[in-house]
Amino acid sequence: MDKNLPLGSRRKFLARSVSWIALGAAALVLPKGYAEEPRMLEDPMRVPGALPRPYGERSPFVKTARVGGAGQGAPHGWGANAPNNFNSWTPLQDLHGIVTPSSLHFERHHNGVPLIDPARHRLLIHGLVNRPMIFTLDELERFPAVSRLAFLECSGNSHDLWLPDAPDFSAQDTHGLTSTSEWTGIKLSTLLEAVGVRREATWMLAEGSDAAGMDRSVPLTDEVLKEALICYGQNGEALRPEQGYPLRLLLPGYEGNINVKWLRRLKLGSAPFMTREETSKYTDLMPDGKAYQFSLVMEAKSVITSPSGRQQIHPGFHEIRGLAWSGHGRVTKAEVSVDGGRTWQLARLQEPILPKCHTRFLLPWRWNGQEAVLQSRCTDETGYVQPTRQDLIKVRGTNSIFHYNAIQSWRVERDGRVRHIYA
Amino acid sequence: MDKNLPLGSRRKFLARSVSWIALGAAALVLPKGYAEEPRMLEDPMRVPGALPRPYGERSPFVKTARVGGAGQGAPHGWGANAPNNFNSWTPLQDLHGIVTPSSLHFERHHNGVPLIDPARHRLLIHGLVNRPMIFTLDELERFPAVSRLAFLECSGNSHDLWLPDAPDFSAQDTHGLTSTSEWTGIKLSTLLEAVGVRREATWMLAEGSDAAGMDRSVPLTDEVLKEALICYGQNGEALRPEQGYPLRLLLPGYEGNINVKWLRRLKLGSAPFMTREETSKYTDLMPDGKAYQFSLVMEAKSVITSPSGRQQIHPGFHEIRGLAWSGHGRVTKAEVSVDGGRTWQLARLQEPILPKCHTRFLLPWRWNGQEAVLQSRCTDETGYVQPTRQDLIKVRGTNSIFHYNAIQSWRVERDGRVRHIYA
Repeated sequence: MDKNLPLGSRRKFLARSVSWIALGAAALVLPKGYAEEPRMLEDPMRVPGALPRPYGERSPFVKTARVGGAGQGAPHGWGANAPNNFNSWTPLQDLHGIVTPSSLHFERHHNGVPLIDPARHRLLIHGLVNRPMIFTLDELERFPAVSRLAFLECSGNSHDLWLPDAPDFSAQDTHGLTSTSEWTGIKLSTLLEAVGVRREATWMLAEGSDAAGMDRSVPLTDEVLKEALICYGQNGEALRPEQGYPLRLLLPGYEGNINVKWLRRLKLGSAPFMTREETSKYTDLMPDGKAYQFSLVMEAKSVITSPSGRQQIHPGFHEIRGLAWSGHGRVTKAEVSVDGGRTWQLARLQEPILPKCHTRFLLPWRWNGQEAVLQSRCTDETGYVQPTRQDLIKVRGTNSIFHYNAIQSWRVERDGRVRHIYA
Repeated sequence: MDKNLPLGSRRKFLARSVSWIALGAAALVLPKGYAEEPRMLEDPMRVPGALPRPYGERSPFVKTARVGGAGQGAPHGWGANAPNNFNSWTPLQDLHGIVTPSSLHFERHHNGVPLIDPARHRLLIHGLVNRPMIFTLDELERFPAVSRLAFLECSGNSHDLWLPDAPDFSAQDTHGLTSTSEWTGIKLSTLLEAVGVRREATWMLAEGSDAAGMDRSVPLTDEVLKEALICYGQNGEALRPEQGYPLRLLLPGYEGNINVKWLRRLKLGSAPFMTREETSKYTDLMPDGKAYQFSLVMEAKSVITSPSGRQQIHPGFHEIRGLAWSGHGRVTKAEVSVDGGRTWQLARLQEPILPKCHTRFLLPWRWNGQEAVLQSRCTDETGYVQPTRQDLIKVRGTNSIFHYNAIQSWRVERDGRVRHIYA
């Protein structure tokens, strides 16, 4: 038995036996909405439980939630009534494994979440094709289906970390604009074959049916043709409204916004379409005033989710847990430092380790009560290593909003409080 | 382009262009509960969409649901007020990929779903151990965590298929008592090490805190010690109440009921505990009147979910889709027959193919409008091949309720209707 483990003891066992026995007689008020009529529950073993439901919900005791906020750099909060520029952040610090519950998937909307009647929704494919066509959802679901687990990450994830001072952020605040789902749909290449895509088609406009008419230009690279999906399924069921119900584009590894939601139209062309979002947003301004356009791949990145910002820990055993991912393929290595990057230890990677998918890493750690700076560093199958903040800024400057992927630092203070810092 | 694909055509394109344009002016009533106030929606692109929510829900247009029913062999329906013997079946025919949405995970309760306050819940480990202990949830979550995707299957899944006549069943009715989740928890072996399990401990009683006091005897085999988890996570979030919130036992590959939910107690012993459920239920009565006890492993099995019972199809291209699984490990092969088992074709297995986990299989098929009998057959990594119904009954007789894993047959009739048959 590892002496560092957070165990009870025989002494504790005896003390607790009393409360264990007392538990049976204790009274508990049922939260509303759980049973049809709230009632007093003396002991869950003394009254028949609730009947099951056609479509279940979580326990009323579980409160973990997305944090919402309008706009880049704005204070977080659901109060702001601004559907045209809305984010919500996934509570990464509360989640397990790699699958993000669909109800907690991060969001980025350009004009709110449209309500779409699937019976009326259509997908038009036109432009440089021999047979322009319009598909119903029923027609699309009959095509050969492909499923895969993949992460999505907003290009603006961690955008506040470009700022000179490190706000008192949680892991949800710093990294919550990424989530992983099992997606199901049709290969884009199957549909392009169906419409007879022309040889000269090298770009594709993807347009959503939200009130923003959100559209992006997709380069038809070999990788896109091999991997892109037109999705109707998420984590086993239909896409959630916030993730594009009834149809979205999935470009594994590419920044979130180009995975166009509520997809209504694909237009094939021979050049990028230069949509509003391709200049007003989603470019990376370099120190010399030039900007990168179509910087689509989300580079290797990682974050320790436990212990993480705004948590408080006690001396003794902890398992350091986090997520690593790369838009270029598989994570091959996640390293953890507890001394601000001076020394690194190899963390265990939890199976399954899938390309372009969150990968869970874990490392046992005993906190001795002294100040410590926790960091994680991801290496992907291309050999790329996640950079330090200093190295990232050396190349990119601080004009950027998007594509921040530097090593994240959490300082454990002597009182056990964990704070977001730059180290 | 494959001529068999269910495509529109240029003619259809022109015809549909009219409705495409007309769509913008059409009126649609918003279902209740989606927006705060239902309102008329002319075109999702012409009005700002809804704001996101802290915890999302599915589209009001998506209605797929569990089917509930009381007791083995009873008619399905939510009406029966019998929490002491309640099942609900997962709508396999409506789902994609391998992850089952937690809200649609199958259920089997022995006295309803208890509501448990996590702050008061405890796990007691005692019996043949050196240090009996009681753990809080906070203490348990600090131990090293393990996540894995695994199926659960009720031992009574497909129980009605032992009956002499084949009812007019859907895939949900015949096979809906199995689901897959990503589970997260502590290795049982870690906790046993913590309490100092004694050498003579060969069995373990697991007891739930539901009103049935559901308990089962678990043999401490090498496999159990290697794989068993004490779970608090399901598909990224806390366990759902119906799957044991806040704590359940997970024994990958073993029949559902021994994966004890609402887990409160583990008692180590040197013999099975012979609980009520180990004689009143969960034994397999053989033709000679003897019964198998502790037949825990769910053998290799599969089912075609599309096309499947109570669906109706039209001539032309279809993708035959289904799920295969084995309690012994990985699925190595899923074969499909469209002629009642005379000839077989190898189906594509969708990645990831994980041990003791649902595996999705797919095979393109063109239905010519003639009667066809669709079957699927699973082979697992031990080389075991899923038996025909005839071969299963030859060995097991028809006295059993549990562990039915024969090849499933769907007859496609000339009118396209798909019916459950024995073939």
